[in-house]
Amino acid sequence: MFVSDCISVNEKGHLTIGGADTLALAAEFGTPCYVLDEQQIRQNCRAFVTSMQQNYDGHGKVTYASKAFCCKEICRIVAQEGLGLDVVSGGEIYTALSAGVPAERLCFHGNNKTRDELEYAVASGVGRVIVDNLEELKTLSRVAAGSGRTVDVLLRIKPGIDAHTHEFIRTGQIDSKFGLAIETGEAMQGVEAALKAENICLRGFHCHIGSQIFDVDPFELAAQVMIGFIADVKEKTGCEVQELDLGGGFGIKYRSDDNPLAYEEYMARVAAVLKKECAARQVNTPFVSIEPGRSIVGSAGLTLYTVGAVKTIPGVRTYVSIDGGMGDNPRYILYQAEYEILNAAKANEPKTQLITLAGRCCESGDLIQENAPIQPVAAGDVVAVLSTGAYNYSMASNYNRIPRPPVVMVNDGQARVIVRRESYEDVVKNDV
Amino acid sequence: MFVSDCISVNEKGHLTIGGADTLALAAEFGTPCYVLDEQQIRQNCRAFVTSMQQNYDGHGKVTYASKAFCCKEICRIVAQEGLGLDVVSGGEIYTALSAGVPAERLCFHGNNKTRDELEYAVASGVGRVIVDNLEELKTLSRVAAGSGRTVDVLLRIKPGIDAHTHEFIRTGQIDSKFGLAIETGEAMQGVEAALKAENICLRGFHCHIGSQIFDVDPFELAAQVMIGFIADVKEKTGCEVQELDLGGGFGIKYRSDDNPLAYEEYMARVAAVLKKECAARQVNTPFVSIEPGRSIVGSAGLTLYTVGAVKTIPGVRTYVSIDGGMGDNPRYILYQAEYEILNAAKANEPKTQLITLAGRCCESGDLIQENAPIQPVAAGDVVAVLSTGAYNYSMASNYNRIPRPPVVMVNDGQARVIVRRESYEDVVKNDV
Repeated sequence: MFVSDCISVNEKGHLTIGGADTLALAAEFGTPCYVLDEQQIRQNCRAFVTSMQQNYDGHGKVTYASKAFCCKEICRIVAQEGLGLDVVSGGEIYTALSAGVPAERLCFHGNNKTRDELEYAVASGVGRVIVDNLEELKTLSRVAAGSGRTVDVLLRIKPGIDAHTHEFIRTGQIDSKFGLAIETGEAMQGVEAALKAENICLRGFHCHIGSQIFDVDPFELAAQVMIGFIADVKEKTGCEVQELDLGGGFGIKYRSDDNPLAYEEYMARVAAVLKKECAARQVNTPFVSIEPGRSIVGSAGLTLYTVGAVKTIPGVRTYVSIDGGMGDNPRYILYQAEYEILNAAKANEPKTQLITLAGRCCESGDLIQENAPIQPVAAGDVVAVLSTGAYNYSMASNYNRIPRPPVVMVNDGQARVIVRRESYEDVVKNDV
Repeated sequence: MFVSDCISVNEKGHLTIGGADTLALAAEFGTPCYVLDEQQIRQNCRAFVTSMQQNYDGHGKVTYASKAFCCKEICRIVAQEGLGLDVVSGGEIYTALSAGVPAERLCFHGNNKTRDELEYAVASGVGRVIVDNLEELKTLSRVAAGSGRTVDVLLRIKPGIDAHTHEFIRTGQIDSKFGLAIETGEAMQGVEAALKAENICLRGFHCHIGSQIFDVDPFELAAQVMIGFIADVKEKTGCEVQELDLGGGFGIKYRSDDNPLAYEEYMARVAAVLKKECAARQVNTPFVSIEPGRSIVGSAGLTLYTVGAVKTIPGVRTYVSIDGGMGDNPRYILYQAEYEILNAAKANEPKTQLITLAGRCCESGDLIQENAPIQPVAAGDVVAVLSTGAYNYSMASNYNRIPRPPVVMVNDGQARVIVRRESYEDVVKNDV
């Protein structure tokens, strides 16, 4: 019925997440409030881990793309499930290390890591640095030499595949700020430079073809292209790398009619391509990493809001204003992202209204959803926006100086705060 | 030559703001870094205040729309210049009060103020609450009664004018989450309810027709409509309100070819309309408020970044990656906002390159500008993005857990930090 297994309705007709009544959560923790279900997160982790074991003999690992939602407790949970962490900044490294995640589990990504960050990553001993470009390779080599270490790297490669997703979140094709293109020869130049670079150990390659992809075909194609590149590198340089990071981008269910990627099918089909291509090109099957982020936390979360004004403009539309908005969820104004919305007290009643869910920021574009079906709503009602576990808290701002909401983790009906609500004092903390 | 008077080039060919060398600022404060010029801010304040005095006999006030950039020091500066503050949240009230701004100078706006915020506003004694809707009027009346106070309010009215600006930032027409429409009769109902409401004193009306408007015509029309409404209210209810808040939306110069609104012309023409319409409809000329935000701080600011990788994709484009991005300036990914960009060390050299200025976030859409002309740039160069004083810091996030940059205020060549750079510890501060 709902977009996620952790969402249900209790005997009072109230929406529940992870067995907890959302109205009780709203009363206890206030609104707006992000809520996540721990069991769903763990189940999502296990689905990927199991799939890697069953389809690829466990010759690989699952790395959580922490940019989807990075806080200490999420880092702890995914690390407990045996996942690595894909981090994209010094702040994400700091969060993971603060949470007790061993540095060797971290893979450090990004198109423009700063020198300070590279120094921090090397000094901390992160497991892999995914080198984006030749400038970075030079800097990293110097940083590594300065600290007397050898750094294990993957090179980020553009396989030249367009995964047909939203323009803003498309990567992998040649026109991208990320990585080195195979077709222009710069990828091979990067390999040669990496093999020569001091204090650098080239372990393999990384690619990422896009986000929120529903179709396995482009992933199969990427696997094929990358094995071809590994083989070409072996022929050209004599070096046969043993690692391949295939990135993430696995589509999740935001709306009832979304057809999310079947992760088992993904791994089964991609593993088959890897084995076949490796046999054909006479290279070893590489140790494979995959990087789910949204698909670990997205559908495990929802956001609770309280309705303020309901404003029906005859012949135009009905605005339902809530106590949050683009500050805690900028994905509608950024990408016109679709979400399922519910009146938490009437979750199993028919959705008889079409509304525009408006945020509270002083900006006309601050909308969370337009022309969206919902049960009847009135001032004081609690509204839930589903599938907000990824890229909501992580993208949240203090626009209008509104404090960011807390994050509450639910597990089998029990709730605990994992990120505290910001106070006004927090907001002005750095003001002189 | 530049988009703002405070921007110039020194004898070394370096870009300056407020007399300070931007390369020296980058070296002292690090990048990314927001820089603002205090004299430009004060000059912008004075232009509005003077214009109000000269064209409307000083029978009005200028209120800074603090959502454009709210921190303690900006609040102090605009208050010193005699401006009021338009605040849109408890966080903005808290900031202004923390900065020592008297509460009676604050006008509290917003389409969905929470009850807690209304209580805070009433207890603090804010000067005006701009009531958005009938639900809020009821809540405010109860809150005021509970604290034994009478609250001075303006009602937010939709004058039904479309100011032909960007779809996302258009307000004032009937299809808006803000205010009460005249044409549907709800504005008049609002007046009648406000006149009856206990502990509420209706002082007048507010309207706001849009943002980044370059043309005076829609403002003249709004003034005419609002005086008409004041007269209609007088005829219908016998109550002649004495205050009119005409909002903001004054367009500023982002690119050299932008033709910003002439503020003197604005005030002269709008004042003439006000006087003429008041005479025609036989009502007093109201005490007028205007609410500049972007036009106070926008062109007084710039952002400094350091270039990392420069990636030329033959036949496609050149990506220049910087150490900031959509985290500190989300306006390009949100609105495709245009900016002037410069190589700070070569500010008076010809712009011979067309580049895409790419942010460092792990997201393909994290771009600051596409196909923008700039002087030749290489890794290590400092790039300046001009006119970032408004809606950059205020909309900044910790996306990718990147700490927010500091804000440096320059005055006649002297620089001081007014918002400190966030630390990693700040970023994880509320994580449990």
